[in-house]
Amino acid sequence: NNIKETNYFTINHINKEIFKKAHQTSARYDKDVSEFDECGLTPEYSDTIKAPYVKESKIKIGCRFVEEYGIKFNETIFIVGEILEVILPDDAVGGDGFVDIEKAGTIAISGLDSYHETKRIARLSYAKPGIESEEI
Amino acid sequence: NNIKETNYFTINHINKEIFKKAHQTSARYDKDVSEFDECGLTPEYSDTIKAPYVKESKIKIGCRFVEEYGIKFNETIFIVGEILEVILPDDAVGGDGFVDIEKAGTIAISGLDSYHETKRIARLSYAKPGIESEEI
Repeated sequence: NNIKETNYFTINHINKEIFKKAHQTSARYDKDVSEFDECGLTPEYSDTIKAPYVKESKIKIGCRFVEEYGIKFNETIFIVGEILEVILPDDAVGGDGFVDIEKAGTIAISGLDSYHETKRIARLSYAKPGIESEEI
Repeated sequence: NNIKETNYFTINHINKEIFKKAHQTSARYDKDVSEFDECGLTPEYSDTIKAPYVKESKIKIGCRFVEEYGIKFNETIFIVGEILEVILPDDAVGGDGFVDIEKAGTIAISGLDSYHETKRIARLSYAKPGIESEEI
């Protein structure tokens, strides 16, 4: 409802410092309660996106609502957004545009409740038939 | 096309031993070429799913094709499948059904080409308003 009212939403990477607060935002708060207040996170606004970012997040993605599809099988809604803005630390972006998530402190999730730090094994070159990809 | 012809597909977790071969399957092979042969992976069949699993994978998910949605904005197809079967090592499943992806050697990906090993930080209890989640 919120996304469709404002037409905007943000996606904010979580890191070790905020993962407990981020997890807490999954609780079923009342409609008129601010999850920012309840969970101890700080809203932050840009000029482009009319929805708040999470200040404590290091990689922030600002989106415009584009389309929605009602998934019949499990009665959920699939939302499509257009990325209008990405805010992230300069030193987390490589010369070729690669985003180094570990430099930004981003962590991963598995299942609904398990949080993981990551360590890069390798980047591999674009795969082509008959040519072995190389580490880049 | 393949999924809609057979009505089945599988999702196979990648691990350190096969990530280079798995990456290679993203190359644009001709329709009549087997990516298993070309990339050095081994097909494996179950009684339930009429599509091959990857034998070298430790966590394998077998799905039936259910619905498809044409996403207008970027001209892609969104496929919905029903999970009919999950094949994984006994010792990777906890008493509460939690799947320990690290025990199964599963690795993560970021972007299109970067592979990462993971280390669990914590699991957090189900979040409820006004109650701080605990590590479980």
